[in-house]
Parts: sequence; structure tokens; C-alpha cells
Amino acid sequence: MELGMIGLGRMGGNMAERLRQAGHTVVGYDHNPDVSDVSSLPELMERLKAPRAVWVMVPAGEATRATVDSLRDALEPGDVVVDGGNSHFKEDQEHAQLLAERGIGFVDAGVSGGVWGLKNGYALMVGGSGDNVTHLMPIFEALKPEGDFGFVHAGEVGAGHFAKMVHNGIEYGMMQAYAEGWELLEASDLVKNVPETFRSWREGTVIRSWLLDLADLALDADPDLAKLKGYAQDSGEGRWTVQTAVDLGVPLPVITAALYARFVSQQEDSPAMKMVAALRNQFGGHAVETLKGADSPGADVTPPS
Amino acid sequence: MELGMIGLGRMGGNMAERLRQAGHTVVGYDHNPDVSDVSSLPELMERLKAPRAVWVMVPAGEATRATVDSLRDALEPGDVVVDGGNSHFKEDQEHAQLLAERGIGFVDAGVSGGVWGLKNGYALMVGGSGDNVTHLMPIFEALKPEGDFGFVHAGEVGAGHFAKMVHNGIEYGMMQAYAEGWELLEASDLVKNVPETFRSWREGTVIRSWLLDLADLALDADPDLAKLKGYAQDSGEGRWTVQTAVDLGVPLPVITAALYARFVSQQEDSPAMKMVAALRNQFGGHAVETLKGADSPGADVTPPS
Amino acid sequence: MELGMIGLGRMGGNMAERLRQAGHTVVGYDHNPDVSDVSSLPELMERLKAPRAVWVMVPAGEATRATVDSLRDALEPGDVVVDGGNSHFKEDQEHAQLLAERGIGFVDAGVSGGVWGLKNGYALMVGGSGDNVTHLMPIFEALKPEGDFGFVHAGEVGAGHFAKMVHNGIEYGMMQAYAEGWELLEASDLVKNVPETFRSWREGTVIRSWLLDLADLALDADPDLAKLKGYAQDSGEGRWTVQTAVDLGVPLPVITAALYARFVSQQEDSPAMKMVAALRNQFGGHAVETLKGADSPGADVTPPS
Amino acid sequence: MELGMIGLGRMGGNMAERLRQAGHTVVGYDHNPDVSDVSSLPELMERLKAPRAVWVMVPAGEATRATVDSLRDALEPGDVVVDGGNSHFKEDQEHAQLLAERGIGFVDAGVSGGVWGLKNGYALMVGGSGDNVTHLMPIFEALKPEGDFGFVHAGEVGAGHFAKMVHNGIEYGMMQAYAEGWELLEASDLVKNVPETFRSWREGTVIRSWLLDLADLALDADPDLAKLKGYAQDSGEGRWTVQTAVDLGVPLPVITAALYARFVSQQEDSPAMKMVAALRNQFGGHAVETLKGADSPGADVTPPS
Repeated sequence: MELGMIGLGRMGGNMAERLRQAGHTVVGYDHNPDVSDVSSLPELMERLKAPRAVWVMVPAGEATRATVDSLRDALEPGDVVVDGGNSHFKEDQEHAQLLAERGIGFVDAGVSGGVWGLKNGYALMVGGSGDNVTHLMPIFEALKPEGDFGFVHAGEVGAGHFAKMVHNGIEYGMMQAYAEGWELLEASDLVKNVPETFRSWREGTVIRSWLLDLADLALDADPDLAKLKGYAQDSGEGRWTVQTAVDLGVPLPVITAALYARFVSQQEDSPAMKMVAALRNQFGGHAVETLKGADSPGADVTPPS
Repeated sequence: MELGMIGLGRMGGNMAERLRQAGHTVVGYDHNPDVSDVSSLPELMERLKAPRAVWVMVPAGEATRATVDSLRDALEPGDVVVDGGNSHFKEDQEHAQLLAERGIGFVDAGVSGGVWGLKNGYALMVGGSGDNVTHLMPIFEALKPEGDFGFVHAGEVGAGHFAKMVHNGIEYGMMQAYAEGWELLEASDLVKNVPETFRSWREGTVIRSWLLDLADLALDADPDLAKLKGYAQDSGEGRWTVQTAVDLGVPLPVITAALYARFVSQQEDSPAMKMVAALRNQFGGHAVETLKGADSPGADVTPPS
Repeated sequence: MELGMIGLGRMGGNMAERLRQAGHTVVGYDHNPDVSDVSSLPELMERLKAPRAVWVMVPAGEATRATVDSLRDALEPGDVVVDGGNSHFKEDQEHAQLLAERGIGFVDAGVSGGVWGLKNGYALMVGGSGDNVTHLMPIFEALKPEGDFGFVHAGEVGAGHFAKMVHNGIEYGMMQAYAEGWELLEASDLVKNVPETFRSWREGTVIRSWLLDLADLALDADPDLAKLKGYAQDSGEGRWTVQTAVDLGVPLPVITAALYARFVSQQEDSPAMKMVAALRNQFGGHAVETLKGADSPGADVTPPS
Repeated sequence: MELGMIGLGRMGGNMAERLRQAGHTVVGYDHNPDVSDVSSLPELMERLKAPRAVWVMVPAGEATRATVDSLRDALEPGDVVVDGGNSHFKEDQEHAQLLAERGIGFVDAGVSGGVWGLKNGYALMVGGSGDNVTHLMPIFEALKPEGDFGFVHAGEVGAGHFAKMVHNGIEYGMMQAYAEGWELLEASDLVKNVPETFRSWREGTVIRSWLLDLADLALDADPDLAKLKGYAQDSGEGRWTVQTAVDLGVPLPVITAALYARFVSQQEDSPAMKMVAALRNQFGGHAVETLKGADSPGADVTPPS
């Protein structure tokens, strides 16, 4: 079928290619004229036969909102928009409402697969009405991996991004679990062969997984990860997972610990640990040494006694 | 080759069977005469040609120690003992020392695979001298899964169980990550189809794994896990992972959170939360109501002011 | 000075009394005619001389918003509203804007002290313009504890409730710290006298505090806290603390762990731990036992091997 | 009464002084001849009338063990040793056994108070037989703070250090709670006056405490703690608290999170976060960029698909 694809970056570009390989017609639009098939949104609309399907693959937040606003004006009743980016599920509901006022449909699609998706297929978690999802199934079929898995119609609008958000929360926890195990192996003198230990786990163990395959690959290239800094960005989805859970009263100790480990990795120094150090200075012996030149702490405070 | 197998429970019995299927000669010894090939340790020794290899597959702790003590007396210099149970790596070192005093070798083997091992093979992490491990390689080859993975000679004595201990720590973290994600999906009204969402993740996603395959299987049998109590035992290895990390100054926030979630699940009621409730009673309004009959809290304590 | 007080529950009523004891004129308004000095908002306005100061002490959320809306209509330019409830700092900013459109000032006041405040004074953290805060200082002076502490003008509108929110987050962490220590003492056979141990800590230790005084009081009344269930509600402020920190990229491992411990205490059973139990069933030996009647798990899934 | 004091460092020296101020006779022995009253252990024994009481105030671990060994030889039946250092409760039990074989008594005393103890008194948590503790009460009375609190006979040998260990665990949790709250206040633009906010909390709030008094003192000297590095050592007792809890199956999420925050603060870089970064590289787009010169990751691994 025909699909407009807005945003031809790494993800959007690869997805367009996978769709074309499957025989679909994709008309791409991007700010970068080198990769764009059309030079304007009106031109994109013209190139697609109604009812149109337009996949939005741009950064979540302002860029997605601006694109939705533009499509609201450019599209016609009966057309449908898919947001394949990493929008918050509440934004989906706002976008669906905005488009519905003009008779335009909306489907949110959480997409997993990263740079491997072009080859292996993209796992899709979609939210929206049954009609809209059914209409788009040829697209989803082409994008998803072969086999029985990799696609779910999770529920109404927002459910796709909600499922993807939770997927990413789980991903944080799993990555941190492997990372902690690796650090513990590295810290011990006993296990001489940490990369081979990780590699051995790829079959027969309870913890075998695709992430473990990737860990093996990473350790193969750099056995002590000496070239890397212990710094990990976090995407919005990890934060939203925790905030949503707190809203719902759901305890997420592991996922939150993984998120916080990333926060700490992003800090040059820890303000909190300055305060801990300050308190230890105050009540411990070091306080006197450190502050010897100044007034002794004993002179300034009378503890409640 | 010939192997004595002490302990023919679910694990030991299946491992003996897998070894026999591979053409090895296994003489099994168990307290249960129905499954035992011999009726005593001396008989087991007699049935094996020197230098003997004896695999111990009994519960860690006292049972393993008692077996090592018996083997110390029954075996001869040049024989070798493999502890395939879940012993602590420090116990391995003690056992190796006890046996070395009689010229008997020792290898520790962490074994993963559970009830699936008979069919798929057992992942093995072994510790010991190069000579001993090389001698036993035919056994390890038969037990491990086919392919390039599933076996590592991790280091000297203790390294095998250390690696297995860390494997289990990672396992705790991963299981809890999936569990938290599942609880969050269940808690939301948005995702209508939680089991299908989990199933869809089995391909194309970053979080695909064998544990996820098992989660799908479990949800297929019982979509809301309604038949299960939220209770999870913990093995010694999760505890040892945390204690070893604390010894080494390695932070394990995710693995520890997963362990603690199990501890909490094992409690009928939480003593800590009684104290939190008590404190809320004391400073909040409920205190007055609860203690109305008795003295008001204000009468008993003078806060430091 | 004159103050209107809307909401004469436990907090509002006691605060009105403390203000009157200090010589201020308080006109109270409450849904409950038994405690109300006036029967309507217009009557309250009439009884106060302009420029009026009105303290709102009603539940955060809808009730506070409705009160602000009513006051927006009832008050006159130059009057000022104080929200002494537990509103979110972002709501403060909305309320201030709504009132500013009519020339009415707004101050948010985080109030701590609970049932002890009438006697000991209420700690106040206020946000708002310097002019408004200065105008209200006689009220704040009467409410706050004697001495040098217990009052801060933390910043512009919202800063008071932000500071109170953080105060409550710290409170969660501290309560949980004591609670965990108490549970550990109770779990050991070694310490025979847990209540006396807690009591002894009230002087000379690093951990002495008012909360510890309250813990002693609670253990004095019920040495094993046997009368209490391990159940602790959480207020909005603990949740907001975590969500705000996640927004700002600030790791709060301790405060979040304390919040999650409360979430868990509120659950009849843990969904997450059902999943952990399900996974253990699947790969461990128990699976076979549990599912013996049904198909063996081996029949249903082929792990990726 | 008469007391021998072995170890006249900051703690031991101040405690000797406080005892002398109370009229007791203290004979001190230290490696440093400048502060020592005697030049050898035999001389110390000679200076004390039997039955002797000797307080050991040296570093836990080897130094304490060596001192106990020496006292075992030097003392006589009926004498009693007090270990006032930070020994593990299991070491206490070993030391008590070693001394009991010679008829020498043993009491363990957890001591809190730091540099403030000389002035305010030392909180004492002691373990040992009723007879031994009663015999030493004049010493304990002189050391402890005035008033009703600050001393507990917690149980048999080891109970004192167990209680002190738990005290320190709670201390970790409380310090981290304040530290997190401080970091969150600092991270927000809303609260303009963080040191004054902390100061205000010293009265009337639920979180008032001695540690908060110290935090105020620290912020008074250095409002942004700009002179400090976010680095906090940990003592053995925090680690033992967590390890003991894990032994007993007691969840300590807050205390453990506080310990781990210190571990992280002690690391130049986080090995775990290198692994997280490596995994993100592998599946995310950055992988391709980072490893462009080398083989693409796609060339090396075939994920299970």
C-alpha cells in the first residue's frame, strides 16, 4: 500500500527501506532535501491517494506536536496518522483528539529494534481503533519480524506507546542487571576470564538473551570496556515509566534503581554525597581537623540535649 | 569415560541420563535405593577404575561437606571430585584443601539449565586447575549445550561457583524487571491485552530472552497469574551475590532490590511497615484517635524544643 | 491582625486557636456549622476589613481549587490568599495566576507539625512575593515555634510547598531508616531488649531525633507493635517528590525506596512477585510438579537454542 | 573506680578524660609514649588492683584481636575486658570465648558520640553478662550523657556491638535522606534559599534531629558545600548491617541504598555504567557511529531470531 513517511533519519529511513523491500510505496518527507522525496507537505499529500496513511517518525515532544498540527491542516477526513516516535501516551491522546476534530484517524506505534530493525524487523506495539489498525496491517506486517511475534495491538490510542514505555523500563532493569554482574565479576580476583564467562552464558543458562549476545559482542571488541566512559544517557521513556508507576502506586524498585544509576552516571560530582561528606565531617573526628582554623563545631551548635 | 555420580535427584538424575546418552559410563549413588546403582560409597569406588572422577550433586552446605569428608576417606590420590551443586565459592576452597591433603583433585562446577537441561544441555561454569579441567572435558562436553557457548573454565577453584553465583544474581534482576513491567501493564487501564503484549516482545525487541519466552508460556497458561501467590523463595546464591558485592565495595542496586522484593514476599506482614505506621500514628492526626482512651501522646513525651 | 480561616478541621482549627492565643482575630468558615463563625463566604468577607488575608486550610486538589475559584470572585484587589494545605507547587502557580488576574495576592505555606503544632508551633515554609510575606509576618510569627527556627521564606510562589514536599520526602526516608533498623533488631536473637535499645538512642547518639522520640513512645505503648498492621498510606507529597526528582534528573534512591515500601504495604498480594514465582516455576523443578497434570512446559516452548 | 584504657586516640583519649572528670582513676596505655601512662602491658596490670577492668579502644579487626590475645595472657581470672571499638558481633563472641577459657570476663560496648562525646557524653550499647555489666556500671554512668537515655544493656555478649551496628545502619539511611532532599532543593530553581530552608526545619518539623542541626552548621560554613567532594567513606558497620540483614532475610532497601551511594561515590568511574553504555552502543544508533571504522556489529552477531 501507499504510505507517507515524515522523518527519514536513522529510524525512519531504515523503516522506509524495509517497507519498499516488501513492495510498499513509500513517499518520504524530511527537512533534509537529500533524502526527501518531496519538498513540502502539500506535495506529499498530492502524491498519496486518499484515504492517506502518514507515518510520523520525528523526535517526541515539540517536533511531533508541530507535525501533528501541520497534518491536521493538510490532511482530509478519512486519512490516518501513525506516530511511530517515542511520544508519551498522554500526548497521543491529545494528538488523537486534535486530529479527530477534523475526521482524521490516529494510531500510536511503539517501535523497537534500533539499528538491527532493517534486517531483523521492528517489534511494533500499536494503539488505536480496530478499524485504523486493520487498515494499516499491511504496513505493520512488512515492518515486523518474521514469525509469530513482534506485533501487538495493545489497546486504544496511547496503549502502543504505553507498552513501549514499559518495554523500555524493563530494558533499563535488564541492562543494569547484566552491568552489575559484570562489575562484580571484574571486581573479584577469582574469575580470570570475564569475557569468556559472559560468552558462555549465551546458551543453556537462564539469563540468555539478545542483550547478553550484545554484551558478548561488546566485550569481544573491548574486553575491559576500557575505551568507554561509565556514562549513560536516559531517554524520556525510562523517566515516564517511573512517574507513571508512582501515579498508579506501583512499586518499581529495580527499574527505578536502573534509572537512578544513569542519573548518577550523568553527574560530574554528586551533590547528595557532598552533604553526606559534610555530615560525616561534622560529627566525626575529621570535622575537627578540617575546621581547625575556623571555630570548632562545638562552639556553634548546641545539639538538642 | 567413567563417572561416579553422587546424588540422583532431579538434577543429578537428568545429568546422569544425558551423560549416558552421550556414551559415558555413569555409576550413580543415592540414598534412595530405587535409583542407586550401588549400595555404598565403597562399592561405588570399586566400580570405578582409577583415576576416578566423582561428581557430587547434593544440596549445598552440610550435605556437600559430609560427602566431601566421606570421599576424602574413600578416594585415592589422583582421583578427582567435582562439586556440581550450589556451594559457596569459599566452601569450594575449603573442600579443595581438604581433598588436596590426600592428593585428591577438586573442581567446582556451577550448573544452569534446570528442568530443561536434559534436553537442551546444561550451561557449565567450572573452576579448578587446568589439568583437572582438561581431564574432565569429555564429561563437560556431553553435559553442555551444543554449539559454541555454554561452557567456561572461569578460573581456579571457586571461580565456577562464583560465576554461577553472579549468574543467579543477574537472573534475580532480570526476573524482577519483567515482573515490574508486567505489574505496571496490569495496573493500567490502557493496555487491554497484557499477555499478547508480552508475547509480542519475543521477537524484534531489545528485551527478548529465554525468560521472556517462559513468561509468555506462564501467561498463556494463566493470563492474570491468578492461580499464583506473590511469593518467591530465594536461594543462597542471591544472598551470597549481595554479601560478596558488599565485601568488595561493589554497588548492586538492581540485584539487591530484586532480592529484597523476595524477602518481602516471604513475610506475612512487614515489621518495618508497622514501625512506619506507628510513627505516622504518633505525629499525625490518627494518633489522637487511636490513643484517645489512653494518655494523649502529648502527655508522655516532650520533643526536644 | 485579622485573618479569615477557611477549613476548621484538625489542622485549621488548631491553627486558629494558636493564632487567637497570640492575640489575633480569626474568623473561621467551615462546612460544619458547629465550628464555623460565619455561614457563608460573603459573610466572611464582610467580617474582615480590607485588605483581607484569608488562609485556606482544606484538602489539596479539587477542594482547594474550588475554594480559590470562590475567593477569586469574593475577594477584592489588594486582598491576599494563603494556601496552607498540601497543594502541588505547580497548582500554586496556577492559583496565583488566577488570583493575580483580579489583583489578589497569593502565598503558599507548607505547614509541618501535625497534632503537636498547637502546643509546639507549626514549622512554616512559605512562597510568595516579599510584600505579601511581609504583610503576613504577624500571622507566621504566631504560628511558628518559639526560637530561631521554624520559618523560612523559601522563594516565589510555589517555593513553600516545594520545600514542604521535600521535607516530606526526607521524612519518608528517615522513617523507613528507623523502621528497617527496628526490624533488624527484632529479627536477631542477640538483642534482647529492643524497646530499651531504641530508648537509649534518644541521647548521645548520631541518630537522635524527634522521630526517634516518637518511636520510643510507640514502643513504650506496644513493645512489639503487635497491635499494628504493617500498612502505611502515602500522601501525595511523597509521590510528587519522586516525580519531581525524576523530572530534574536527580537520583533519590532512599526516598524512593521508602515510598515503594509503602506501596508494597498497601497491596494485598504483589502482582510482580506472582510473575517472579511464575518464572521460577517455569525454569525450576517446581514447574514440572505444578503442571504435571497438564502438558509439560517442554512441550509448549522451544527456547531459542 | 579504676580502669585501664588501652588506646588513647581521639576516642580513647577523650573517654579517659571524661572518666577522670567524673572522679575515676584511669591508667592509659598507648603505643604513643607521649600520651601513655605506662610503658607496657605488664606495667598496666601492675598499676591496677584486681579484679581489673580494662577498656580496649583500638581499631577493630587485627588490632583488637592482638590486644585481646595479649590480655588473655596478661590478665587474671576475675578481671574483665571491655571492647569499646567497632568490632563485629561475631568477633565479640570469639573474644569472649578466648578470655573465658582463662576465667576473664568480656563486655562489648558500642559507643556513639564522636567528637561531641567528651562534652555531651557517649551513648553506650553494651552486651555481656549481668554481673559484668553491673560491675562496670560506674564507668558506664560516667561516660553516658546525663538524663534518662544514652545507655542500654542490650543482651549477652555481642548485643552491644549488634545494636551499635544497627544504629550506624540507621545513620546511613538518615544521612542519605537529608542529602537527597538537599540535592533536590539545589536542583530546583524554585527554592532560592536552601540553607535557610534547612535551618528552618530545626524546629517544629517532623524531620528535626541532631543530624539536621549539623547539616545547618555545615551549610552555614559553606552554603553550597562547594569546598567538598561528593565522596563518602563507609565503615565496616554499614556493610555488616546489610550482610547481617541478608543472612536473616530482612529487607533493608533504604539502608542498603545509602551504603551503595557511598560505594558509587568512592569510584572514579562506574564499571557497571560502562557496560550499560556498551549495550546502548550495541543496539542503538550510536553503535554504528562509534564503531564505524571497525566491523559493524551486524557482522559479528546473529541475534536469536
